[in-house]
Amino acid sequence: MNFKSALKDKKTYFESRLQGYIPDMNAYQKTLFEAMKYSLDAGGKRLRPILLMESAALFNSDIEDTIPYACAMEMIHTYSLIHDDLPAMDDDDLRRGKPTNHKVFGEGIAVLAGDGLLNYSFEIMLDHALKNEKNSYKYVKAMNEIAKAAGVKGMIAGQVVDLQSENKKIDKDTLDFIHMNKTSAMIIGSMRAGAIIGGANDIELQDITNYAKNIGLAFQVVDDILDIVGDEKKLGKDIGSDLENNKSTYPSLFGIDKSRDIAKNLIEDAKKYISRFDEKNEFLNCLADYIIDREC
Amino acid sequence: MNFKSALKDKKTYFESRLQGYIPDMNAYQKTLFEAMKYSLDAGGKRLRPILLMESAALFNSDIEDTIPYACAMEMIHTYSLIHDDLPAMDDDDLRRGKPTNHKVFGEGIAVLAGDGLLNYSFEIMLDHALKNEKNSYKYVKAMNEIAKAAGVKGMIAGQVVDLQSENKKIDKDTLDFIHMNKTSAMIIGSMRAGAIIGGANDIELQDITNYAKNIGLAFQVVDDILDIVGDEKKLGKDIGSDLENNKSTYPSLFGIDKSRDIAKNLIEDAKKYISRFDEKNEFLNCLADYIIDREC
Repeated sequence: MNFKSALKDKKTYFESRLQGYIPDMNAYQKTLFEAMKYSLDAGGKRLRPILLMESAALFNSDIEDTIPYACAMEMIHTYSLIHDDLPAMDDDDLRRGKPTNHKVFGEGIAVLAGDGLLNYSFEIMLDHALKNEKNSYKYVKAMNEIAKAAGVKGMIAGQVVDLQSENKKIDKDTLDFIHMNKTSAMIIGSMRAGAIIGGANDIELQDITNYAKNIGLAFQVVDDILDIVGDEKKLGKDIGSDLENNKSTYPSLFGIDKSRDIAKNLIEDAKKYISRFDEKNEFLNCLADYIIDREC
Repeated sequence: MNFKSALKDKKTYFESRLQGYIPDMNAYQKTLFEAMKYSLDAGGKRLRPILLMESAALFNSDIEDTIPYACAMEMIHTYSLIHDDLPAMDDDDLRRGKPTNHKVFGEGIAVLAGDGLLNYSFEIMLDHALKNEKNSYKYVKAMNEIAKAAGVKGMIAGQVVDLQSENKKIDKDTLDFIHMNKTSAMIIGSMRAGAIIGGANDIELQDITNYAKNIGLAFQVVDDILDIVGDEKKLGKDIGSDLENNKSTYPSLFGIDKSRDIAKNLIEDAKKYISRFDEKNEFLNCLADYIIDREC
């Protein structure tokens, strides 16, 4: 498999489907839709929706049934970035090389565009569940995974603790809490939702959850390493901020070599967890490898 | 029926049940839960959850099945107030006589507490639907009504257009759009969700929708009248702001007497729509009358 080309194709396909959910612009609340679309179109890895679709693809499921949930995941991720960038939070002027939402539309609209994306994510998932009465319980279960991952004991919890930890030296437990909730929860939630839509049984669901946990943590360890030894040009951001902020990271606690070993072991274990899905797991195996090989 | 006493009892009952949904405070994200609780506890009429529960009570339904949805409605209403009060929006320091959320917790946490309440509203509804596999489709329909009412073609649309209309002379159509979406949509959504949970058929659902539309509009007409002839002490706010802002309101377009007639007719029609539910509709009949008799 040419993984990079496959990844690019999946991203392109997802983005084309995401466009189908942008509401019609000809309305009083045109600016709301423009602001939502502006940030949805801003790009990014589309990692969460791709993981959701790939998790479902481990089973003989219809890709159509994953699209609303994959789009919902990306909308939730995007709303969290819009609110994160606000002056009251991280106060960022640029995101992926473009002015942040509030820089273009003003703070008030940016708050509402974020609210709109979060609410709309449930609107489109519920629309799909409404059209599938026979399987509605399965979609309730998938929505529940997504809501919990994004929620007050998931992503939002991570954001709150991250906000409160700004300019403070925090211990390893707090850092793990932020990583687990701000990043890993959404990765795990994406894959669990996809597996449920695909029709996973309990054992399969647990294995996929473990895969997701491992790649989520490995992703973070590699992020920490790249913040020390990465190439600023490739990363598109300054390195060294963790050191500067005196952050407790894997490299600061265990050194770079040991951290690399930890990441490698996490990835090897991740692949073992999905080994039962032979032939259908190739993309997710490559994705796991890509997480430690990446330079950005 | 002693309506005011019945209304107070229902409010007290609802508030006691709402407390059951406040997450356990002993966690890293303690501040998030405190901020959510602070605004949920701040009071208010609890009109939306009461309408939801009363709409379901027109049928032989179990009140337990309405609680998560009633609480969700109030959480959505509360989050919209928290975000509305932010400096980037209405910039209010006080809400119901208490400092607004961002005045107590800071803007960053206020944004996240609002996000948390919106997301949590879906978490608690989905929890309930998960526990009721047999009726899950019914609850998907109820959640869909709530999501749409709160959404980008409902409440959030009204907020966006309201924000954009600040300090501008707006026409009647725009004003109607704001009223319909910012206020009526949530009233209608509450009653439709309640009716669906209660087990309404299509005709009953349509009648309840019409009742809700009428009381929502009458509520607004009376608000406009009170802004001219109301008692500032009873209202707890200054009157005359619509005139000052040159706002197109019912009284400004039709005069006060004609506006009172419009409100009365809306209320009489509202009561006709629910006349089929004899014996069970007494509270909602009184509530309709209360809307035009109220002084605050």
